[in-house]
Amino acid sequence: NAGGTAVLRYGNARELCLGIEVVTAQGDIWDGLRGLRKDNTGYDLKDLFIGSEGTLGFITAAVLKLYPKPKGVMTALIQVDQAAHALSLLQIAQDRCDAALTGFEYMSAESLALLAQHFPETARPAQQLSGASLVLMEVSHPLSEAAAVAMLEEVIEAAQAEGLLKNALLAESMAQAKAFWHMRESIPLAASEDGPHVKHDIAVPVSALNQFIGAMDAELLSAYPGIRIINFGQFGDGNLHYNLAPPPCPGDAAARRLAYQAFIDAHETDLHRRVHDRVVAMRGSISAEHGLGQLRRDEAARYKSPVERQLMQQIKTALDPKGIMNPGKML
Amino acid sequence: NAGGTAVLRYGNARELCLGIEVVTAQGDIWDGLRGLRKDNTGYDLKDLFIGSEGTLGFITAAVLKLYPKPKGVMTALIQVDQAAHALSLLQIAQDRCDAALTGFEYMSAESLALLAQHFPETARPAQQLSGASLVLMEVSHPLSEAAAVAMLEEVIEAAQAEGLLKNALLAESMAQAKAFWHMRESIPLAASEDGPHVKHDIAVPVSALNQFIGAMDAELLSAYPGIRIINFGQFGDGNLHYNLAPPPCPGDAAARRLAYQAFIDAHETDLHRRVHDRVVAMRGSISAEHGLGQLRRDEAARYKSPVERQLMQQIKTALDPKGIMNPGKML
Repeated sequence: NAGGTAVLRYGNARELCLGIEVVTAQGDIWDGLRGLRKDNTGYDLKDLFIGSEGTLGFITAAVLKLYPKPKGVMTALIQVDQAAHALSLLQIAQDRCDAALTGFEYMSAESLALLAQHFPETARPAQQLSGASLVLMEVSHPLSEAAAVAMLEEVIEAAQAEGLLKNALLAESMAQAKAFWHMRESIPLAASEDGPHVKHDIAVPVSALNQFIGAMDAELLSAYPGIRIINFGQFGDGNLHYNLAPPPCPGDAAARRLAYQAFIDAHETDLHRRVHDRVVAMRGSISAEHGLGQLRRDEAARYKSPVERQLMQQIKTALDPKGIMNPGKML
Repeated sequence: NAGGTAVLRYGNARELCLGIEVVTAQGDIWDGLRGLRKDNTGYDLKDLFIGSEGTLGFITAAVLKLYPKPKGVMTALIQVDQAAHALSLLQIAQDRCDAALTGFEYMSAESLALLAQHFPETARPAQQLSGASLVLMEVSHPLSEAAAVAMLEEVIEAAQAEGLLKNALLAESMAQAKAFWHMRESIPLAASEDGPHVKHDIAVPVSALNQFIGAMDAELLSAYPGIRIINFGQFGDGNLHYNLAPPPCPGDAAARRLAYQAFIDAHETDLHRRVHDRVVAMRGSISAEHGLGQLRRDEAARYKSPVERQLMQQIKTALDPKGIMNPGKML
């Protein structure tokens, strides 16, 4: 059930797959390769297999839903003072653009500082907006670039009138739009360059994003002075890659890695616990995109209700009684 | 997993429900009331329960996804010579409007004739377009009615340039737009007024709609001279209410009902078989919206593969081992 920056408009894999073919644990082939928007003739087997991480069967083919390619795409970097403003900006953009809003990514000031530190060339397009959090907003119009520009400009003007943004930079070319996206996509690479971090792939209801960021940041900065919160992600879907970098450390890269690793060994369990406890308390998800696998399996078991775990186990046992499908993952 | 004329833009109930609460067959309560766009922490229980027609559990609460209300909505009735032209018109509309296309309903000439016969007042808005099939097209724009009008007019001009339509009528007021929709919604009522018909709620891939209608109409008109094909529905989703009215019969309403019922008693099984065989051969659905219940249960079993029936049965047995949930339905 993969998803990324385009989920905002086009949905996760479940929403983009109309039908699938599956090899079951019994070795049968289920031909569910339908290309229908509407079909109410039985249980939703398709969505049960999608996202089951291979624990119920192998997906061997799929019918995908396609969309016409938009003729105009416009991108902007928008400087916001606080997550609350990004949230209000999102509401304005959704109200005015509806499905034409095809990207809404949040990059915290700390994540941008990390990018500037390790990849200064990549961070250059936002140099004049430095020191603040940024929203990368993309608007796609079916008919023309001019229409996309007009929509995006209207959103920015409306947000400006409400005092929600300090500054905005509209891409002046396709190349610049690509450079904006390249910044966003390079944040995880800058993090790898920096050394080992404590990573989270969480989601909370969009309406709770601001509250989550405010309370979580405060709790962590108080408990771990100097910790860097590398927070970026699909704000429009409530999905944050809320990663934590150990406090900066002097010395060369090798010394830094050692110090970071020592910090992680000492605190990773507590950091996961703090973040995931708060996420679950806000009815969020501890794995928005990446799945459970082995890494989050026990963590998920801790948060799922007994009823939900039992339902999942009943389905697993029914479809894979011998437990041969991707054993040890998810359940 | 209910759906209707707005599925084209907003999806079925599965796509509009972010989370649900379920009472299971064991009497447990599963609290799955999440409001997340992204969550990959387990099997898709939500979509398994939705559309299971109560055979796996009771849904007792739901978190729904909401959309901003569009500020401008524009509606048109468009006269087309053949289903192939409606299909080309759909492609133009999707290409130019993307998600702004919020309605695309097909009404065959026969279904409009039935409406005119039983509810002449309701059919009046399309009087000047009579004798042909119509498409009811609706465009919704987030910002303004003027923008919706402009989009709809561009679609009509482009379709006219390709010779796809004979005539088009844009609603001049909200009242007229409502009158257009009232026509579409009154077709099933006109059918009830007419007497018992043989009903189908089918879907085929959108790309196969034209082929289906051409071949199916020809087969039925040849096998049953005088039969009336009351075909209307969500063309944009490949969903047709492909209903069959017995040949017209002289006499009063009571005599007509008797004659219709005799025709149905003699031919219903064969008519269902012909329609559903062709639908399934085209990888379609014999129940796009309505579900299986008791009426289509055995019919569905005939068309589902043994593998799919077994998967469904395994899930049913796992979650409801005593078979107490809505027994006799669906499976």
